[in-house]
Amino acid sequence: MGLIVEVENGDPNNAVLVPPPNFAMVEDCIFRSSFPTPSNFPFLQTLNLRSIIYLCPEPYPEENLEFLRSQNIRLFQFAIEGKTDVSTPILKDSIMDALKVLIDVRNHPVLIHCKRGKHRTGCLVGCLRKLQNWCLSSVFEEYKRFAGVKSRTMDLTFIEMFDILSLSQCLYSIIYQYHGYGSKKRRLLNKDENLQKPRLTSF
Amino acid sequence: MGLIVEVENGDPNNAVLVPPPNFAMVEDCIFRSSFPTPSNFPFLQTLNLRSIIYLCPEPYPEENLEFLRSQNIRLFQFAIEGKTDVSTPILKDSIMDALKVLIDVRNHPVLIHCKRGKHRTGCLVGCLRKLQNWCLSSVFEEYKRFAGVKSRTMDLTFIEMFDILSLSQCLYSIIYQYHGYGSKKRRLLNKDENLQKPRLTSF
Repeated sequence: MGLIVEVENGDPNNAVLVPPPNFAMVEDCIFRSSFPTPSNFPFLQTLNLRSIIYLCPEPYPEENLEFLRSQNIRLFQFAIEGKTDVSTPILKDSIMDALKVLIDVRNHPVLIHCKRGKHRTGCLVGCLRKLQNWCLSSVFEEYKRFAGVKSRTMDLTFIEMFDILSLSQCLYSIIYQYHGYGSKKRRLLNKDENLQKPRLTSF
Repeated sequence: MGLIVEVENGDPNNAVLVPPPNFAMVEDCIFRSSFPTPSNFPFLQTLNLRSIIYLCPEPYPEENLEFLRSQNIRLFQFAIEGKTDVSTPILKDSIMDALKVLIDVRNHPVLIHCKRGKHRTGCLVGCLRKLQNWCLSSVFEEYKRFAGVKSRTMDLTFIEMFDILSLSQCLYSIIYQYHGYGSKKRRLLNKDENLQKPRLTSF
């Protein structure tokens, strides 16, 4: 029998874990949260992170840098101001650059965070969902789940207007090269095992 | 370069995906949502599900059963009434039984759903988080993110009072048998590869 519970020692009371506020799993090996503090480090260790995408212009605190060094985690910083006018081309470029880092599985497992895990993180995740062909209403629902009453219409507009076509086309060309034109399903996956899932149960 | 985008055909506009409302990833190979309708089936196909945990007493609709048959997905139904008095022992037993199905990786990937993906699903996920040693405030934050204004104090009390000790002890005994007492880290993981993550980047 296989189980998913992780145990560090025999006494469960010894290892209470504190995820950062607004923590969630986005996709296999992609996580999101607010700014992690030292109280969250034991929890973050369980994620086995390879990198962090940090979306604020402020320098990363020394104690967080020390944690990253000790865990061999790479920091990708994209300096987006807290209340950026979303019509500026700089934001588009920063989100596009962050998106390229985000979808590269060589950087996984990866944690995305800004300050509150609502607006900047929500925009980046929203653009990822567009790239995954989610319908806009579902993208917005997810954004609002994390932003709550702080939801910003200008962020939703940014996500809607964000052009993923050039990135998609770039991905398609890579995928075509990888699988060839004759393949029925042109999927480039992190783990090959997903393609052929063993079936233990029948319906 | 490895990428996580999945493509069904060359035209991205052909494959707009509609996740069920309140859809989210809970853990590796564990998902949650509201009741899926046929418009969500193409999206659900991308999850490559092996099973569904359904937490309502109402019979599963024929069109959903047909989808499950076609995808070879096993249905586990736990008949919990919509506004159950959480003090009834029946609920405790149902959630415990569902939890046992949920943590068994032989059933993964698995989707948990009830009607709205708020209360019954939120209770089950909350109990899973306790088993994972999350602190209660983080468990409650996650519950509220999905329940929103429909958040119920009695659900939070149920989660708080839910006794995971017997299940934890059972898991520990399995883990001890599996890894032996001498092991420094007693983790029983879905994928062994997680234990030895290759490092491609250095900080």
